[in-house]
Amino acid sequence: MSGPARLIALDWGTTSLRAYLLDDQGDVIDVVSNPSGIMAVQDGDFARALDTAIGAWRSRHPDLPIVAAGMIGSAQGWRDIPYVDCPAALDDLVAAMKRQSLTADCPLPIVPGVALRGAFPNVMRGEETQIVGALELRPQLGADCVLVLPGTHSKWVTMRGGRIVDFTTYMTGELFGVLGRHSILGRPARDAGAGEPDATVFQGVFRVASQVAAAAFEQGVLTIRDNPSRGLSSMLFLARALVLSGQLPAAFSLDFLSGLLVGEELRCGLAELPASGGAGIALIGETALCAHYVRALGLFGIAKPPIIEGAAAAGLWRIAAAAGIGSLSPTG
Amino acid sequence: MSGPARLIALDWGTTSLRAYLLDDQGDVIDVVSNPSGIMAVQDGDFARALDTAIGAWRSRHPDLPIVAAGMIGSAQGWRDIPYVDCPAALDDLVAAMKRQSLTADCPLPIVPGVALRGAFPNVMRGEETQIVGALELRPQLGADCVLVLPGTHSKWVTMRGGRIVDFTTYMTGELFGVLGRHSILGRPARDAGAGEPDATVFQGVFRVASQVAAAAFEQGVLTIRDNPSRGLSSMLFLARALVLSGQLPAAFSLDFLSGLLVGEELRCGLAELPASGGAGIALIGETALCAHYVRALGLFGIAKPPIIEGAAAAGLWRIAAAAGIGSLSPTG
Repeated sequence: MSGPARLIALDWGTTSLRAYLLDDQGDVIDVVSNPSGIMAVQDGDFARALDTAIGAWRSRHPDLPIVAAGMIGSAQGWRDIPYVDCPAALDDLVAAMKRQSLTADCPLPIVPGVALRGAFPNVMRGEETQIVGALELRPQLGADCVLVLPGTHSKWVTMRGGRIVDFTTYMTGELFGVLGRHSILGRPARDAGAGEPDATVFQGVFRVASQVAAAAFEQGVLTIRDNPSRGLSSMLFLARALVLSGQLPAAFSLDFLSGLLVGEELRCGLAELPASGGAGIALIGETALCAHYVRALGLFGIAKPPIIEGAAAAGLWRIAAAAGIGSLSPTG
Repeated sequence: MSGPARLIALDWGTTSLRAYLLDDQGDVIDVVSNPSGIMAVQDGDFARALDTAIGAWRSRHPDLPIVAAGMIGSAQGWRDIPYVDCPAALDDLVAAMKRQSLTADCPLPIVPGVALRGAFPNVMRGEETQIVGALELRPQLGADCVLVLPGTHSKWVTMRGGRIVDFTTYMTGELFGVLGRHSILGRPARDAGAGEPDATVFQGVFRVASQVAAAAFEQGVLTIRDNPSRGLSSMLFLARALVLSGQLPAAFSLDFLSGLLVGEELRCGLAELPASGGAGIALIGETALCAHYVRALGLFGIAKPPIIEGAAAAGLWRIAAAAGIGSLSPTG
């Protein structure tokens, strides 16, 4: 049983917009998900895209505050919000939110992304909000842990003392999409009628939930795990050569490819972990996607890490409350 | 001064057709290069594509024998010629050529590709012919060496006793093309007006011959060389993050990307070499492309390996002569 609507929270990324109507406890009353990611918005008319997505909510709740996170706060988005530097915690995000002067052009407070400086610079926009939400939803993770956010650009985030201190991006999802659609590696599956990999979302990786697909995925993970020195660039070609040599069914070559890419992400990500053997790892994301990471992690000897869903909405609620947006109180 | 025309030799690949008119010494009288690779041939009408390319030669020399190598002998080509298995030498290629029964549908003898069996299967079509030509052009390479053929699918080939005994494929060129054109990594360069990477040939990697481009390329190579454990999937994202953090000019981010990909190929290829420190490596390909590999190899401590150009025509001549095609004698 939901309470009264108190906040509209937007997880607005490159390829999709997800809007949450939240009640006075931060619980989700309603969700709208559509493909109006920032790259799909016509003529930069973000106000109209937003109205299309949540106009009905705003008619019913005209005074509800709105808050957003994700690529909507990038140079290609509605307003370019400067990054907060690592180490970054909730307080830093909230302070940066409070400094934003809203304008008629963009009346929307946007959670800043987080930047890592140095020889291996890195950036995130949206994941910082999911991290805040994940720690809120699962406080037993503690202040020191490694959070893995699978996706187009998977993030492995090291938390120390409740702060984001370091992170790495793996291009797992985008490599899969681009190679499956545009390289020779996608041809056997296309010829076999297995269909195109999904154009926009990483979940397309796992389009077939069959035993053969699962076996091909695991074969890919194990190939990477057991041959760490060969390098991804040559291993990728195996997705073609194994089909030509009759060792992999053409229709499942993309499952093998996704196994290679997820395997490479895990191999490198786990190698960076302290000698804790993977204690303190959690996955943040949709269960269907994270389940494949759990399966692959198992092949690396990491048993059943927790999966945290709903982190974006929880993080947006937490940050909005801490920033005093719409007079929400931090305790909900 | 050329002798009389004796052979038409075709290097017919996925994206281009290169035809050589050779004299009675195997020297090149004329070359035709056009984009009628097998993927561009309409309705499988290879005979017409061939006539368009070399009709003028055939009018002048109606009785000249023709021989071909490359993807034209694949399932997607004119006729599917079975692979010769490793270990493979000139004699094996010649024997397979002699077994071909020519038909009106495909009156053309085609050099078979070479297949590697086992847990890491691999295939080549066309490179085996370049290897025969390279050994002919540069006998001082000896029977034991490592031949590197940069390209869309770069090959590193181990020769023992004059036979192809092992080889690895790196997707260097295709990864560059696909990521530059279709992934987020190509966007900074596109926005900076640096133009699209070439759609079909790897040479597009090195479109800018400036000092800044060379520095960005070297930065990519060194980044891979000095951080072998981080893995390509995360290093690729650096091509974006370095631009966002102001550490790499957007217009040269593709040069950095090509440095990463060539660096990864060299890192893995060199790690597989015996402890000879790279003695006995030679590059086969166009000088403009190979020069960048020489530059990158220098950063790995390998000084000036030989570059062998013209290997395809030389190999086609050698194989045709050994097979007795058109009564050529093996000594030319």
